[in-house]
Amino acid sequence: MSTLIKGGTVIGTTGPYAADVLIEGETIAAIFAPGRAPEGPEIIDATGKYVIPGAIDAHTHMQMPFGGTEASDTFDTGTKAAAIGGTTTIIDFAIQRYGEVVQDGLAAWHAKTAGTCHIDYGFHMIVGGVDDESLKAMDQLVTSEGITSFKLFMAYPGVFYSDDGQILRAMQKARDNGALIMMHAENGPAIDVLVKQALERGETDPIHHGITRPQELEAEATSRAIWLASVAADCPLYIVHLSASKALEQVKAARDLGRNVFAETCPQYLYLTLEDQLGAPGFDGAKWVCSTPLRSKHESHRADLWQGLRTNDLSVVSTDHCPFCMKDQKEMGLGDFSKIPNGIGSVEHRVDLLYQGVVDGKLSLARWVETIATTPARMFGMYPRKGIIAPGSDADIVLYDPNGRTRISVDTHHMNMDYSAWEGWEIDGRVDTVLSRGEVISRNGEYTGRAGRGKYVPRALSDYLV
Amino acid sequence: MSTLIKGGTVIGTTGPYAADVLIEGETIAAIFAPGRAPEGPEIIDATGKYVIPGAIDAHTHMQMPFGGTEASDTFDTGTKAAAIGGTTTIIDFAIQRYGEVVQDGLAAWHAKTAGTCHIDYGFHMIVGGVDDESLKAMDQLVTSEGITSFKLFMAYPGVFYSDDGQILRAMQKARDNGALIMMHAENGPAIDVLVKQALERGETDPIHHGITRPQELEAEATSRAIWLASVAADCPLYIVHLSASKALEQVKAARDLGRNVFAETCPQYLYLTLEDQLGAPGFDGAKWVCSTPLRSKHESHRADLWQGLRTNDLSVVSTDHCPFCMKDQKEMGLGDFSKIPNGIGSVEHRVDLLYQGVVDGKLSLARWVETIATTPARMFGMYPRKGIIAPGSDADIVLYDPNGRTRISVDTHHMNMDYSAWEGWEIDGRVDTVLSRGEVISRNGEYTGRAGRGKYVPRALSDYLV
Amino acid sequence: MSTLIKGGTVIGTTGPYAADVLIEGETIAAIFAPGRAPEGPEIIDATGKYVIPGAIDAHTHMQMPFGGTEASDTFDTGTKAAAIGGTTTIIDFAIQRYGEVVQDGLAAWHAKTAGTCHIDYGFHMIVGGVDDESLKAMDQLVTSEGITSFKLFMAYPGVFYSDDGQILRAMQKARDNGALIMMHAENGPAIDVLVKQALERGETDPIHHGITRPQELEAEATSRAIWLASVAADCPLYIVHLSASKALEQVKAARDLGRNVFAETCPQYLYLTLEDQLGAPGFDGAKWVCSTPLRSKHESHRADLWQGLRTNDLSVVSTDHCPFCMKDQKEMGLGDFSKIPNGIGSVEHRVDLLYQGVVDGKLSLARWVETIATTPARMFGMYPRKGIIAPGSDADIVLYDPNGRTRISVDTHHMNMDYSAWEGWEIDGRVDTVLSRGEVISRNGEYTGRAGRGKYVPRALSDYLV
Amino acid sequence: MSTLIKGGTVIGTTGPYAADVLIEGETIAAIFAPGRAPEGPEIIDATGKYVIPGAIDAHTHMQMPFGGTEASDTFDTGTKAAAIGGTTTIIDFAIQRYGEVVQDGLAAWHAKTAGTCHIDYGFHMIVGGVDDESLKAMDQLVTSEGITSFKLFMAYPGVFYSDDGQILRAMQKARDNGALIMMHAENGPAIDVLVKQALERGETDPIHHGITRPQELEAEATSRAIWLASVAADCPLYIVHLSASKALEQVKAARDLGRNVFAETCPQYLYLTLEDQLGAPGFDGAKWVCSTPLRSKHESHRADLWQGLRTNDLSVVSTDHCPFCMKDQKEMGLGDFSKIPNGIGSVEHRVDLLYQGVVDGKLSLARWVETIATTPARMFGMYPRKGIIAPGSDADIVLYDPNGRTRISVDTHHMNMDYSAWEGWEIDGRVDTVLSRGEVISRNGEYTGRAGRGKYVPRALSDYLV
Repeated sequence: MSTLIKGGTVIGTTGPYAADVLIEGETIAAIFAPGRAPEGPEIIDATGKYVIPGAIDAHTHMQMPFGGTEASDTFDTGTKAAAIGGTTTIIDFAIQRYGEVVQDGLAAWHAKTAGTCHIDYGFHMIVGGVDDESLKAMDQLVTSEGITSFKLFMAYPGVFYSDDGQILRAMQKARDNGALIMMHAENGPAIDVLVKQALERGETDPIHHGITRPQELEAEATSRAIWLASVAADCPLYIVHLSASKALEQVKAARDLGRNVFAETCPQYLYLTLEDQLGAPGFDGAKWVCSTPLRSKHESHRADLWQGLRTNDLSVVSTDHCPFCMKDQKEMGLGDFSKIPNGIGSVEHRVDLLYQGVVDGKLSLARWVETIATTPARMFGMYPRKGIIAPGSDADIVLYDPNGRTRISVDTHHMNMDYSAWEGWEIDGRVDTVLSRGEVISRNGEYTGRAGRGKYVPRALSDYLV
Repeated sequence: MSTLIKGGTVIGTTGPYAADVLIEGETIAAIFAPGRAPEGPEIIDATGKYVIPGAIDAHTHMQMPFGGTEASDTFDTGTKAAAIGGTTTIIDFAIQRYGEVVQDGLAAWHAKTAGTCHIDYGFHMIVGGVDDESLKAMDQLVTSEGITSFKLFMAYPGVFYSDDGQILRAMQKARDNGALIMMHAENGPAIDVLVKQALERGETDPIHHGITRPQELEAEATSRAIWLASVAADCPLYIVHLSASKALEQVKAARDLGRNVFAETCPQYLYLTLEDQLGAPGFDGAKWVCSTPLRSKHESHRADLWQGLRTNDLSVVSTDHCPFCMKDQKEMGLGDFSKIPNGIGSVEHRVDLLYQGVVDGKLSLARWVETIATTPARMFGMYPRKGIIAPGSDADIVLYDPNGRTRISVDTHHMNMDYSAWEGWEIDGRVDTVLSRGEVISRNGEYTGRAGRGKYVPRALSDYLV
Repeated sequence: MSTLIKGGTVIGTTGPYAADVLIEGETIAAIFAPGRAPEGPEIIDATGKYVIPGAIDAHTHMQMPFGGTEASDTFDTGTKAAAIGGTTTIIDFAIQRYGEVVQDGLAAWHAKTAGTCHIDYGFHMIVGGVDDESLKAMDQLVTSEGITSFKLFMAYPGVFYSDDGQILRAMQKARDNGALIMMHAENGPAIDVLVKQALERGETDPIHHGITRPQELEAEATSRAIWLASVAADCPLYIVHLSASKALEQVKAARDLGRNVFAETCPQYLYLTLEDQLGAPGFDGAKWVCSTPLRSKHESHRADLWQGLRTNDLSVVSTDHCPFCMKDQKEMGLGDFSKIPNGIGSVEHRVDLLYQGVVDGKLSLARWVETIATTPARMFGMYPRKGIIAPGSDADIVLYDPNGRTRISVDTHHMNMDYSAWEGWEIDGRVDTVLSRGEVISRNGEYTGRAGRGKYVPRALSDYLV
Repeated sequence: MSTLIKGGTVIGTTGPYAADVLIEGETIAAIFAPGRAPEGPEIIDATGKYVIPGAIDAHTHMQMPFGGTEASDTFDTGTKAAAIGGTTTIIDFAIQRYGEVVQDGLAAWHAKTAGTCHIDYGFHMIVGGVDDESLKAMDQLVTSEGITSFKLFMAYPGVFYSDDGQILRAMQKARDNGALIMMHAENGPAIDVLVKQALERGETDPIHHGITRPQELEAEATSRAIWLASVAADCPLYIVHLSASKALEQVKAARDLGRNVFAETCPQYLYLTLEDQLGAPGFDGAKWVCSTPLRSKHESHRADLWQGLRTNDLSVVSTDHCPFCMKDQKEMGLGDFSKIPNGIGSVEHRVDLLYQGVVDGKLSLARWVETIATTPARMFGMYPRKGIIAPGSDADIVLYDPNGRTRISVDTHHMNMDYSAWEGWEIDGRVDTVLSRGEVISRNGEYTGRAGRGKYVPRALSDYLV
C-alpha cells in the first residue's frame, strides 16, 4: 500500500530536481530529498528517469458520432491507449445538439463512460443549440455537475454551428457563472462556399479539404471570437486546436493586452503538413483529414507554433483525438473530400511527440510538463489534484526514460485504428512506467490496469481567470 | 459661353497656386498663370477665394425607404441643398432587396432621379440578396450600366444582411470584374442580442442605440470583411461610415500591408459624440441616431479619425446623408430606440464642416480638397472628369471664401428636415460660388440652378486598384 | 536539528497546496501531505500562513559609492533589514570602473561582505570599462568566480557609460560564455543635454530630475539594447529597473518574437509617481530621486507594469535598493537636482509591497512568489538551491501571514535611512517568520540572526537561456 | 519665346489627363484642354508621350571629398548627366566639418557651383560638428540663405558623427526654426566594431562592407532618430537612403502615429543586392560599395521598399549620387573593404529606373511622378516653383516616351565614371525631351544646354510639416 519512486529526477514547471516520491494509497504522501525517505515501502527504481505528473489530454472525442459514423476508439480502447502513452486523465466532450436537452447529452456521456474507462476523465459540454434553455443548463452544470467549460462551433453550419448572437449570449452566461468558453474557430459559412466551389471544379482529393479551409478563415474566426468575448465583458475564451500562424497572431495580440484568452495546439500541427501528409498520393491523405486542417510547409506555421508554446501564447497541447479507420470510415469520402470523417488519433503518442520537442531543443523539460499536464489541470479546474507532483495530489505519475526509444506504428499501437497517422516515427525517449492514483497500470508498454478503474473528475472553475 | 475665374488660388491635392481658370461650355478649357489669360470672357472675380473642384458626396440616401418611412430629402430637395453647399456630384445607392431583380432596383432609382436632380449623380448598388442571379447582374452593371461599386451589409439581419458565405461570393465576383465592394461593417446578429437585452431592461432612450452598438462590433466586422477580402484574392474593399478607433486600426493594419482596403468617415464622427448629442435630454438624441453610431467623447475616436484623414488611412469623407424629420419619422421610436429611423442629414454642410478642420489645423488645404473631391472621384471612377481643376475636366468648380462665415441652422438650411443636426454651428469660411458643368448654380447662397439639370454619370472602375 | 513547518499552505508557482515542510540542517528534507510527517521534529506552527521560498532581491547596492558619498546601508544593516522583510538572498553589484581591473573590483566587494552579511548573497559585476582586458575577465568570472551576469550602463557618460561599440563587444562575449548582460537603459548623452538646459533655465527642484529623463529616452535605450543584442547573435539581455510604458513595449515586442530578453521592475514604479512623490513640496521630492525616475501618474505606467508582471513581459521585481539619507546625502542636491544621489531604499519592504498587489487583485499568489523568488533564482543561476520549496533545496523559507498587517515607517524600519520612501503605507499582510538555511532568523519582526552568517553563493548560468 | 507642348498626356500626382502646355519665357503660362491653345507658338509634338515635371534629385554629392579622394563627377559633369536623364534640379550637400564654420562650408559649395551647373540646384547643409556656433548658424541659413534642411550622421565616428546629445540639440533647433533634420541612420560605433573584427579575421572583400553593416544597425539608428525627434517636440525628421525592411518598419510605425517622419530610398536598394552585386567575383563588388549597403536578396527588402513607396511610408526616391571610378578610387580598398570610397552613381538613370517600376506594375504613373519630382519639391520647399506642371511654375518639363527604350552602359552614359553600376540594364521607356526653365536642353539624348545656365534655388520650409 506504500510505494517509493526512488532515484529519479522530478520535473516541475520551473525545472528539475532530484527527489524520491512516496505514495500511500491513491495519493502522494511525501516528497523526499534523495536518500531521506524512510525504508519500508515498495521501491520503484527511477534512476535515470524523469518523474513527471501523469499527462492530461484535455481534448478527446472517444466514440463520437460524426457524419453517420462514430470515432473508432471507445472509451475502453481509447483510455487504455492513452494510459500506455502516459496520459492519466482525459477530458472528453459530451454533446448537446440543436433541439436536445443539455442534461440529456451529459447523461448519455456518463452512460458511455460508466465502467469503461481505464483512467480518470472529465467532460466539457458541447452546446450545439444556444437558447434560453441551454443557457440555463450551463449554470446547472457549473454548479452541480463539475462541468465548467463549454464548447461552441463557428464552423459546421447546420450541425454544431452557433451564430454570433448565440455565441455572444453563451459568453455572457460564462462571464457570469465563471465557466470557460472553448471555441472551434473557423468561419464555416465561408468555408462551405469554398468547398462547394472546389467540388464543382472536380477537386475532390483529400488535399482539398485543407485548401478549402485557408488559414485566413481560422484567423478571422479566432479574431471574431476574441472580439465577441470582449463585448461579453472579457469572458474567458479558449481556442481549441489552433493550427495556423495568423490565428496565433490574434491570440498573441489579445494576450499582450492581458486578456483572458488561451489556446491549445495539437501534435499534428507541430509536425505534419498539408503537402506531405494531406497531399499524400491517391486517397492516402484521408488519414490526416482533420479540422482545423494541416497547414502548408512552405509557410512558417510549425515554427511559429513551437515558438508560441515557448512564449506561452499557446498554453496547452491536446490531441483532439478523434480516430476513424480508413476502411468503411475515411473511405466514405472517396471521390468527395467533404465526406471524409474529420479526425486524427494521437491520444497514445502526445507525451512522446512533445518530448521529441525537448530533444530537438524546441521546448524545455519544464515547459514540456507544463503544456501536457500542469496547465491543462489548472486551465480546467483539476489542480492540484492533477497535474503536479506534490504531496496530497493524486498519485498520477509517469516515469519517462530519456534513454529509451519509441517507434510508432499501427502494428504496435493500442488505439482502435487501422492505420497510424505517425507510422514509422521514432522518438528519442520512452514512457517507462505509468501510475494512476497510485496503481501501476503500465510498465514498459505492458498494460496492467483494467477497464472501469477510471473515475469521473468533477471540475472546479479554471485557475487562470483573474 | 466663355467664363474666366480670375484672381483666385487654385487648391490642388499637392498644394495651392495662383491661376485663372477659363471655362468654355461645360468644361475647363485652360488654366492660366495670373494675368496670362486672353481678354474677352465673362469674368468671375475670385480674388481672395480658393478655387476648388466641386465636391463629391459619395454616400447619400435620398428618399430611401427605411423602416416603414422614407428619407425626407427627395433627389430634388437633396441635390439642391448639396449644390448650395458646394457639392456638385453625389453617388446615391440604388437598392436590390432579397428576392428582387437587381436591374429592377436600378431602374427604380433611375426613375426617381429622372428630371429631378440639380447636380450630376451616379449610383452604387446595394445587393441585399447575394445569389447566382444577383452575382450575374453585377457583371452586367459593371459592363453596361456604369455601376462599379456594390454595397453589402453585415448588419440588419432580415433586411439587407449578407452572411459570410454570401459576402465571400460577392467579393469573388468583384475581384473578377474589377468592381469595389463597399461594406457596412457592424456585426448585426450580435447587435440584435444587445438591443433586445437593453429593451428588456427598459433602456429605451436614444442613447441606447449607441450603447448597444459598441465599437468592438464595428471593429470586428471591419476586420472580418478584410479577412474575407483576402480570401477573395484581395478583392478591393471600401468600408463605409467608419466611426471608431478600433475599426480604424483594422483598416490601418491592412493598408500597412499594401492591401486594397479603403475607408470613409463622415462629418458626424469627426465632431459629434454619444454623450453630447445622442445622449441629449429626453428624446432629443433621436436627431443623431445613425448607424454606425456616434462614439464616446471619453475615448479618442475623433482625434484618431482626424489623424486617419491626415495619414490617408481614411481616404474619403462622405455624409451618409439620410435625413428623417423628428415629427412622424424619428418619433416612431418614442419609447423604443430601435424603431427610430437611422440617419443624419449633412449633405449641405460637408464642404464647410471639413474646411473648419483646415481652420483648426487638423487638415491641410490640399488634403481638404482631396478627401471631399479628388479621392472620391478617383475611388469611384469619375476622374479626371470630376474631382480636379484641370483642362478638359467638367467645370464643376467652387469658389470658397476663407474670410466668409457660415452659420448652420434649420432656419436657413435647404434640406427637407425639421431640425438640423448641426444647429448653431459656425464655420470660419463660406461657399461663395458654385459652378456645375460651367453654369453658376449658386452664388452667395442664392440658388440659380434648376431641377433636372443634373445628369447621370456612368462610372469606370476605381483608379486605386492595382 | 530537525524542524517541521506544519499546517501551512505552500505557495508554488502554479498554485497553492496544503503541506508540511521538514527541514534537516540547512536544507529541506521532505514535504509531506498534511498529517503524514513523522513525529519528532520541532514544530513551527504555520496554520493560516502561506509558506513561501525566501525571497531573492536580485538588485541591491549596499554601501555603493555614488557622487562623492556612499549608499547608507552597509551589508550589515542592509542584509539584516532584508532578512526581517522576508528576503533571504540578495545579489549585489561589484564594480569595475574604467581603468580598474575587474578582479580587483570583485575582490573589494568580497572584502566588504566578508563577515558582515546576515543572509546569503551573490554578485553581479558592473563593467564600467569594456576593453580587451575586462572582456577576458568576464570569462574568468563566469568560469571560476560564480559570476554569470554583467551590468552595463547606457547612462552616466564619464562614469559607468559604455558606448554602443563597447556594449556590442560585451554582448558578443556574453553570447559566447553564456552570461547575461544586464542593462541600465537610459540614453545618457541626451539626458545630459536636457539636464544642462533645465539647470540653465533655473529648474533645480527634485521633480526636474524626472522631467529631464523622459520615458522616450528609456524606451529608446531599451530598444537599442535589444537591437544590439540581436546583432550579437541574440545575446541574452536583462533590462534593469524598467519604469515606463514605452520601454515595456520594447521588451514585449522582443519577447513576442521569442527573444532572450527579460526585464525587472521595482516597487517604486508600481506605486509611486512623478507628481505625488518626486514633485513633493520643497526639497522633499529628493527622497524619491532615483534613475530610472518615477513616472507621471497621468499616464498608464503603473497599470501597464502590473499587467506586464501578469503577462510575464516583466519577469522579476527587485528593489534597486540604494538608500541615501536626506541629511548630508540627498541634501547635496539642494539647489541642483543633478547633485542629488540617486536611489531609494526598499529592500525591507519588497515582499510586503508585492503582496499588497495580491490583495488588490493585481497578481495571483503564485505569480507573487514567482516574481520575488523563483524567477530571480532561475534567472541568475541559483535554482533549485534557492527560489523554491522543494526537497534538497536550501531551507530559505518565509511564513507569511495574510491576516497580519504591516505599517511602514522610518520609526520602525531597520534600514539605515533617516526617512522612509514608504512612510505611513499599510500592507494587508505580514512577514511572520523567516528561515535562512534552516535557521529562524526573524520571528514576528524580532531579529534572531547575526552578521556573518550569510554565505557567498556562486552562481551558475541562467536557466532561461535556450 | 513661346512654346507649346502639344498632344501629350500630362501626368499629375492624382493621374493623367490630356493637355497642351504653353511656355512663355522660363515659366508655364497656361495649360489647355487639347486643341484649345491659340496658334502661334513653336510646337513641340508630344503625341504619345508623357509630359511630367522635371525630376528633382534631392540627394547628390558632386565632387564630394571622401576618404582622401573626391567623388568623380564635378557639378559640371554631374548636372549635365542628370539633365540628359530627365532631372532638372538637384539638391547637393554643402559640408561643415567639426571645427569649421558652417558658413564657410556653404561658401565653398557656392564657389564650386558658380558657373558650372547645367540645371538648377539647391543645398542641404551637413553639420559635422554640432555646437553652440553651428546651431546659431542653422538659424541664419534658414532665414537668409535658403537652406532649410540639415544632415546629421549617426555613422562615421571621427568624421561626420554626431552623438545623441548633439543630435538632440540640432533637433531642438530645427523644431524652433522649422528646418528639417536629415539623418544618415546607421549605428557607426557598433559597425566599427564589426568592421575591425572582420578585417582581423581576414574578411577583406567588398561583400564584407555589407555584412558588417547588418540591417539591425540601420533599423536601430532609424528608431533612435525617431525617438530623439519625439523628445525634441516632434522635430521633423527625414531618413536618407533607407535600405532595409526593418528600418522601414520603424518609419512606418512613426507615420502610423501621424509623426513628422519621412524617408527616401534609392534605386540601388530597389533593384540590387548584397549577393549579386556587392558579392561579385574578385574586387568587382567594389562598384557597389555604398552606405547604407545593398541588402540580401534572400530577405524581402526590395519587395518591402516598393511597397513602402506605394503606401507612402517612403516619400521620395533620390540617388545618393556619389560616384567613384574603379581605377585609383575604388581600388584604394583592394585588400581592405573599409578603404573603398562609398558611393554609387545613378543621377542620370533615376527617372528611367523608376519608370521601369511603372512598367513592372510596382508603381502607378502618378506615384512615379510624385516620388521623383512632386514630393521632393514639396518636402524641400521648392513647390510650386518646381515639381508640378502648373501655370506659373518653372517650365522644367520632361517628355517621356513609353514606347522608347533605354540601354544603360558605361559606353553611353554621361557621368564621369569608368564603369556603370547598371551596366547592360534595359528600360522599357526613354527620356525624350528635357526642358529646364523653358529651354530645351536635351532632345533624344543629345545635349543642347551649357554649363553655368543652372541657377541656385533658395528653398522655403518644407510643405509637409504641420
